[in-house]
Amino acid sequence: MSAATALRCIDCDRAHPLEYLLNCPDCGGLLFVEYDLDRIAGVQFGDLDGPGIWPYAELLPISDPANFVTLGEGSTPLIAVPRLAAEIGLDNLWIKFDGLNPTGTVKDRSAVTAVSAALQFGFDRIGVVSTGNAATSIAAYAARAGIKALVLSAESSSRPKVCHVNALTANFMMYRGGYDDMIGGYDRAIDDRVVFDGGASRNPYKQDGKKTLAYEIFEQMGLQSPDYVVYPVGVGEILLASQRGFRELHAAGHATGVPIPIAAQSSVADTIVKALNEGGPRVPITIDYTMAEGVAVGDMGPKGDWVLDDLRAAGGLGAAATDAEIVEWQTRLARLEGIWAGPTGCVTLPALAKLVRDGKLPTDARVVCNISETGLKSDIEPPDIAIIDSGREDVLQFLQS
Amino acid sequence: MSAATALRCIDCDRAHPLEYLLNCPDCGGLLFVEYDLDRIAGVQFGDLDGPGIWPYAELLPISDPANFVTLGEGSTPLIAVPRLAAEIGLDNLWIKFDGLNPTGTVKDRSAVTAVSAALQFGFDRIGVVSTGNAATSIAAYAARAGIKALVLSAESSSRPKVCHVNALTANFMMYRGGYDDMIGGYDRAIDDRVVFDGGASRNPYKQDGKKTLAYEIFEQMGLQSPDYVVYPVGVGEILLASQRGFRELHAAGHATGVPIPIAAQSSVADTIVKALNEGGPRVPITIDYTMAEGVAVGDMGPKGDWVLDDLRAAGGLGAAATDAEIVEWQTRLARLEGIWAGPTGCVTLPALAKLVRDGKLPTDARVVCNISETGLKSDIEPPDIAIIDSGREDVLQFLQS
Repeated sequence: MSAATALRCIDCDRAHPLEYLLNCPDCGGLLFVEYDLDRIAGVQFGDLDGPGIWPYAELLPISDPANFVTLGEGSTPLIAVPRLAAEIGLDNLWIKFDGLNPTGTVKDRSAVTAVSAALQFGFDRIGVVSTGNAATSIAAYAARAGIKALVLSAESSSRPKVCHVNALTANFMMYRGGYDDMIGGYDRAIDDRVVFDGGASRNPYKQDGKKTLAYEIFEQMGLQSPDYVVYPVGVGEILLASQRGFRELHAAGHATGVPIPIAAQSSVADTIVKALNEGGPRVPITIDYTMAEGVAVGDMGPKGDWVLDDLRAAGGLGAAATDAEIVEWQTRLARLEGIWAGPTGCVTLPALAKLVRDGKLPTDARVVCNISETGLKSDIEPPDIAIIDSGREDVLQFLQS
Repeated sequence: MSAATALRCIDCDRAHPLEYLLNCPDCGGLLFVEYDLDRIAGVQFGDLDGPGIWPYAELLPISDPANFVTLGEGSTPLIAVPRLAAEIGLDNLWIKFDGLNPTGTVKDRSAVTAVSAALQFGFDRIGVVSTGNAATSIAAYAARAGIKALVLSAESSSRPKVCHVNALTANFMMYRGGYDDMIGGYDRAIDDRVVFDGGASRNPYKQDGKKTLAYEIFEQMGLQSPDYVVYPVGVGEILLASQRGFRELHAAGHATGVPIPIAAQSSVADTIVKALNEGGPRVPITIDYTMAEGVAVGDMGPKGDWVLDDLRAAGGLGAAATDAEIVEWQTRLARLEGIWAGPTGCVTLPALAKLVRDGKLPTDARVVCNISETGLKSDIEPPDIAIIDSGREDVLQFLQS
């Protein structure tokens, strides 16, 4: 079923068999899954069927259908947003709203392939370190698959996410102290195969689920790729996987081109944007607070260099946004189009608006923004809402206002 | 496009033209939309296409496609849940998980037809009184359609819902004082046509969007209806609309039968269950607190009698659940199947479990449970999670646990 052929190293370019490898055995580089292009050329896009992301099973790295886990993820709406487009200054803008996935974020796409790969390699437990979205997603799919999810979150994690993770797994701990200490213990357990790796930094099977973003956009636009796609960039997994999906579509002859990627970051964690604009290498930083938790990454590790290489090779763009700008555009998206999205997804909007204002992309370009999470998972302060008396006159006056 | 032919009164059975009517002009009874059965017989189920609920446009009461509003609602997953089924004592159980709608609840299906009908009848403002899900849903679709949503919520509304409504509309007020006073002013404004009615009690155009639940279940089961469908019952709109959808499928020759409806209520608001079990009329009550906000209805009004008639005519069943039982099954659903749903949706599970335990339905019946909302919209107390030290040994020990 799967057209996967090998694991390929991004550094030394050597191929390895499709085993449970987290780094290149030769050079330690990161790995990605490679597929048979002739097989991809034969995929009948626009005419695929199956639950969740499994219509694309041939383009995913899970070989046995018995291991296809699903909660109905994917098939999220691609929504034309003319009023928002006018505010940004574009003629053609679509929102790919991944907040409608089972746990409310794009991470469900890769939690599927992570948990399915855990089954494929015979594991009955999967671990993840996360303050939120990744934790809830891995815990949900592990529960669905009947395996144990072991989740570690920082003591400071937000309240709705803690409630959500706790509902989904009995094996949930918070940790107090440095991240570096903790990740040392976690990586040791991963390397010792105590638990399967549900993290975003190394596992090549996990990230591939996010390629389905590209396939869905391609199908939803009538078997065409857009001109530009905007991604929130934290560790960079969405951008890397989705662009790989678009390149496969092009290489196999389905699409006439590959979209130009745009990286959207928080202004407190803008290492990719800086490197792109200044032409130098990516310089890891220690970051201040941002409400956009999913892009609060000052040191992306080796994946950061991969993201930068991908962007440069594709003529990609980047821009960063402050929390104030994120909130402004989050409200604009809600009030103008009725879409209530979280800050990590909304970072894409002010970033795109800046690039359009600076003339970096033509106003008639066909642009898709990945809005990666629902607004329902954020712990925001309740607003002050005016209170009226329930009497008839006050109510009538309000409704006539 | 639409196969709607008339508004029919449930009391005097007279037909009226498809105008903006909220009650029968002859007798004041509630109205529903009637469709041309020959046209429904010609619908190609299993082969329909379009955004949101609009693949079913022929079976909905909106005539002009220019008024089809959408945020990608519907097409929610129908998930086979074998582990949960075993706990309940059934061989074949599916969850229709409507928490994956744009605002996280089944109400999006009817907010679509409410807002589309507002456009159809030339209104540029829509009103709603709600403590939560209905408010966010109407506000989202009004924003999407570019019309004004005027929302009134009780002062005690839950925090995540207040944040969500406020994000979506600038015309949001809380009220202090009695509901009866307030609804007097609201109904006056509705009858004076100051705002279009976005409420659940009268508008026949609004409720019809929820018929799509039946059509989707029918298609997802391979053009078959299930034997039983379990609905959370507050005002009863989901049950009424969905069962009407199933009856249409049967009357038009698509389905061989109509599922038996099961009403699930909170034990503090169990008027339908009591009437069903005791054989008498529905007796409105003043209710105590339940966390299942969507079924916290002690007086269902005239719709309550309609629900009871529907259930009796179909040989329907009913059962009620306490908050403690709801939480128990909410956790079970999350831990066994990875689905995190809100209390209003989860009331269906303990209710169904009781009926199975009492031998009220055969264990080999094909049963669908409507889980009507995501767990992300509830304001729950964060649990006490154990905290470990971030040092390597503590982390390793946890992952090996």
